Amino acid sequence: MQQIPLAEVYQLIEPGPVVLLTTSDRGVPNVMTMSWHMMVEFTPPLIACIVSEGDYSFKALRRHRDCVIAIPAVELAEKVVAVGNAHGSDIDKFTAIGLTPVPARKVAPPLVKECFANLECRVVDTRLVNRFNLFVLEVVAAWRDPKQKTPRTIHHRGYGTFAVDGETITLASKMP
Amino acid sequence: MQQIPLAEVYQLIEPGPVVLLTTSDRGVPNVMTMSWHMMVEFTPPLIACIVSEGDYSFKALRRHRDCVIAIPAVELAEKVVAVGNAHGSDIDKFTAIGLTPVPARKVAPPLVKECFANLECRVVDTRLVNRFNLFVLEVVAAWRDPKQKTPRTIHHRGYGTFAVDGETITLASKMP
Repeated sequence: MQQIPLAEVYQLIEPGPVVLLTTSDRGVPNVMTMSWHMMVEFTPPLIACIVSEGDYSFKALRRHRDCVIAIPAVELAEKVVAVGNAHGSDIDKFTAIGLTPVPARKVAPPLVKECFANLECRVVDTRLVNRFNLFVLEVVAAWRDPKQKTPRTIHHRGYGTFAVDGETITLASKMP
Repeated sequence: MQQIPLAEVYQLIEPGPVVLLTTSDRGVPNVMTMSWHMMVEFTPPLIACIVSEGDYSFKALRRHRDCVIAIPAVELAEKVVAVGNAHGSDIDKFTAIGLTPVPARKVAPPLVKECFANLECRVVDTRLVNRFNLFVLEVVAAWRDPKQKTPRTIHHRGYGTFAVDGETITLASKMP
């Protein structure tokens, strides 16, 4: 994994890929699948996400206030769905599903080795947690796997159906 | 346009497409391009979005508390970028760019005829507007164009580069 500038993080999240979210509770890491997230600010990069209070990760995120957002390419789609189908309280999902936790630099939860990008995050706002389960995160370190040069991400349309990135188009834009 | 069940709205937003946002201020409609949005709740469908205080739409959204999220297919990509490059205070973007405003049923801002889906929204939470420009919306009516049967959406990677939906895959999932 190579570190990338924090100012480039929005380019990974803005397209709306399915991601994995890792947390850690008293030294035990967990991973969940997440599709409800968005950019909030370019730099420092802020990300909002919904983690349901029914998810095992909710308690860890609220208590320890840090997490990792790991972005999988389409080759990991089956593992991503397996993570979504499992419960953190039942099993060690990393071992059972075949994902490799790697120590992060600035936060306790692990990176996911198989993902092409990993974002270390700290919780910076919880005012909408009670009403909406909405956390605002700041990305404090960002990593990419240089061996995965043109990853295609997956985008969930419901019930296990995903759109996979196809062609790329570029238009003259004033937008960052 | 045909009305669709509100419970299906998340299937349109969760994949993370670029959308158009229409607002209306004292009878004058405006449209902007938006990529920072996410689902917050299935039903009633709630959506969070970031509308920068520098955007012309910000004031209208804060004052009138309603908007329409219109979802374009890839065939509209050039118009979507043209909307993103223009400022609402300068021109009537609908006329200049060639988009057709259509009256909504429950809110003042218009639907966009050329888009394959349109979501009428009301603002339900503004607690994070001051710090993050983050609005929480409730979708109160949802429409689809039955003539656009398999629209491919676009996903912004920064600087006018977009990933277009490619193949669709389906895996056995317990997730809604």
